[in-house]
Amino acid sequence: MKLKVTTNILTANEKIAEGNEKIFAEAGVFVLNLMSSPGAGKTTLLEQTIARLKDRVKVGVIEGDIAGADDAMRIDALGVPVVQINTGGACHLDANMINEVLGDLPLDDLDILVIENVGNLVCPAAFDLGEDCKVVIASTTEGEDKPIKYPRVFREASLCLLNKIDLVSVPDFDRRAFCSHIQSVHADLKVIEISAKTGEGMNDWLSWIQQTAMQTNKTQPC
Amino acid sequence: MKLKVTTNILTANEKIAEGNEKIFAEAGVFVLNLMSSPGAGKTTLLEQTIARLKDRVKVGVIEGDIAGADDAMRIDALGVPVVQINTGGACHLDANMINEVLGDLPLDDLDILVIENVGNLVCPAAFDLGEDCKVVIASTTEGEDKPIKYPRVFREASLCLLNKIDLVSVPDFDRRAFCSHIQSVHADLKVIEISAKTGEGMNDWLSWIQQTAMQTNKTQPC
Repeated sequence: MKLKVTTNILTANEKIAEGNEKIFAEAGVFVLNLMSSPGAGKTTLLEQTIARLKDRVKVGVIEGDIAGADDAMRIDALGVPVVQINTGGACHLDANMINEVLGDLPLDDLDILVIENVGNLVCPAAFDLGEDCKVVIASTTEGEDKPIKYPRVFREASLCLLNKIDLVSVPDFDRRAFCSHIQSVHADLKVIEISAKTGEGMNDWLSWIQQTAMQTNKTQPC
Repeated sequence: MKLKVTTNILTANEKIAEGNEKIFAEAGVFVLNLMSSPGAGKTTLLEQTIARLKDRVKVGVIEGDIAGADDAMRIDALGVPVVQINTGGACHLDANMINEVLGDLPLDDLDILVIENVGNLVCPAAFDLGEDCKVVIASTTEGEDKPIKYPRVFREASLCLLNKIDLVSVPDFDRRAFCSHIQSVHADLKVIEISAKTGEGMNDWLSWIQQTAMQTNKTQPC
């Protein structure tokens, strides 16, 4: 009798993620995996980012949602290549879902690919997709305690965007406590304060993308 | 050779949830399972609810978090029985986690037990805990599209609380679109608009608890 042990789902994911990574490297495309709670402003940020970049840099997008194609339609309206993945109930994107849609994007023509994950501060952090960097968005209206309550996503991230900074005074957000919580879970995590609505902080975010992409030698200065 | 098929995890959960349900029925305690995105205001709502109920009704709380005991400490400060569950990474509470802590609560003395689930609009909806009702909290700052993007939790819920109504004008929340999205996923779902911060709508929420608890014959009118 032969005993076949099935591969651990996370190990299987890592293997496919490595494959994606190679595909992205060959195409020379810089890949960001954008994660946040539902409603923290991922899609609005993406719209504003694309509007500012698209004349200089070729951007593509993969939208991850449990259901619906609303986000993909918002991105499509900006005239950039976009693919919508519906997970059909699953709470995160995995490397295989990404692998299956890569043929639907003009990878060789892209400089930057942004993957907008399912709105969830927990599960997406455990699944590498083959990206260069994970970016977590926190929003002021969620309160300052998210880094200590959902530590993994803040540990995995290369950057934290603190969004809805235009509402900072309204929900009694304690900025100092937020920074202290970030410090306690990921001491050198860079935080950029932004408002995707008013545009505040967007230049810092675009500079971060440019500098980080250059470090990967994948894209030219934009 | 014997082939043993392991029980599907959701089937196993259902069995334990049924056991919990019996324990709650014998103790005559009305049980709510509170679900929302991170930062939608579950703990603040709970604090305000307990402050208004605790002189008339005996309330107990189970706090579910991935890490930390901050929420349990906030509830403990109100002088009601509370148990903190740390899921250690898991993105939802399950019936077994609840079953394991029931001995730490004075169930026979309680009228109402509120279970605050892990902040996540996806996974908690798939796991019954043995509760009487699921309540989903949406908040105005998350935008109006959450019901169509996370339909299951809105379908499973007996009530939707729309929180942060004091901020309704600030983030350009489209109330009509929200109601229409609720309608499309769960046509007869009752929505109560509240502000856990200002107290707006709290009386309607307390009335709903009272009426719904009475229907289960578990608690006396409060």
